[in-house]
Amino acid sequence: MDRNQALERVKPELTEHRFVHTIGVMETAIDLAMRYGADVKKAELAAVFHDFAKFRPKSEMKQIIIEQNLGSELLLHNEELWHAPVGAYLVEKEVGIVDSEILNAIRFHTSGRPDMTLLEKIIYVADYIEPGRHFPGVEEVRELAQKSLNEALIKAIQNTVVFLMKKKQPIYPDTFLTYNDLVKNLEVEK
Amino acid sequence: MDRNQALERVKPELTEHRFVHTIGVMETAIDLAMRYGADVKKAELAAVFHDFAKFRPKSEMKQIIIEQNLGSELLLHNEELWHAPVGAYLVEKEVGIVDSEILNAIRFHTSGRPDMTLLEKIIYVADYIEPGRHFPGVEEVRELAQKSLNEALIKAIQNTVVFLMKKKQPIYPDTFLTYNDLVKNLEVEK
Repeated sequence: MDRNQALERVKPELTEHRFVHTIGVMETAIDLAMRYGADVKKAELAAVFHDFAKFRPKSEMKQIIIEQNLGSELLLHNEELWHAPVGAYLVEKEVGIVDSEILNAIRFHTSGRPDMTLLEKIIYVADYIEPGRHFPGVEEVRELAQKSLNEALIKAIQNTVVFLMKKKQPIYPDTFLTYNDLVKNLEVEK
Repeated sequence: MDRNQALERVKPELTEHRFVHTIGVMETAIDLAMRYGADVKKAELAAVFHDFAKFRPKSEMKQIIIEQNLGSELLLHNEELWHAPVGAYLVEKEVGIVDSEILNAIRFHTSGRPDMTLLEKIIYVADYIEPGRHFPGVEEVRELAQKSLNEALIKAIQNTVVFLMKKKQPIYPDTFLTYNDLVKNLEVEK
């Protein structure tokens, strides 16, 4: 599936604003894939489809999470997290992409997970820093992403955790396990 | 065991600075116990002995954690966390306190845990806000503790998580789970 086919396929699933965001994620993910030596084509496809399920009805997402055993913990946390694993499921089922690296990059683009692959890190960070993003802290993550994908990812998760804590929102366990995993590996790298 | 006996027993285990801190925690814990309707005598004893193991050699603490199955996860995290569960073990073994509420308040005074008891919350917060504590954010927790023990505890954990994240230190999983548990229960209370 080439880029134009992929964009044509995802467009009717998204609002215009989210489609523009998707193009920003795609361009950023391609840049990061070239910089860090990931598969550029897989980065492009994962980015194009990362928000495929974003606008599915809550009831449909809930049903898929239950029927496909995507994790009961998910249902206890913010619905914002649901579209990522549901998206991975639907992109396989409805679009026909079966590459597990691409599907996992979609699946973990919001929560992260311990032992993230390079492609998963790229989609997570690209989603955070694409040019349409404007919120406190994003510029620092953009700059870090030029030097170290892991440092960028750690800062993005830190910002997310602090943001959620200020609102007294619970933190999805995989998110802080991802943080712990990343900082422990930083120690090993030093 | 009355207060003076308890203080006499703990004094040789601590530095002078830490003994003064312990008296501060004791007085604060008694205040909080009266305010929130906990057992004042248990609060006093738990506070006096909360740092009982603080100055034990690292090798002794490590050995106790392994031999007593206090959790292998502990050994992967900062040693600052070790003295709490090791303290609960030694206070039972060497001081002879067998009350599980007191021992658990000692055991969880650094990490917290989901479903903390009132006494556990009191010792955690008293340790954080006793009059000898001077660090950014402590005054806000002191003020919250006058109104809501849960709000004070959430803020103390938030401060700790943000502090550790700035230093790129891992976060002990129980600490995050405690935070999630507390904010979820806040939602229920509303």
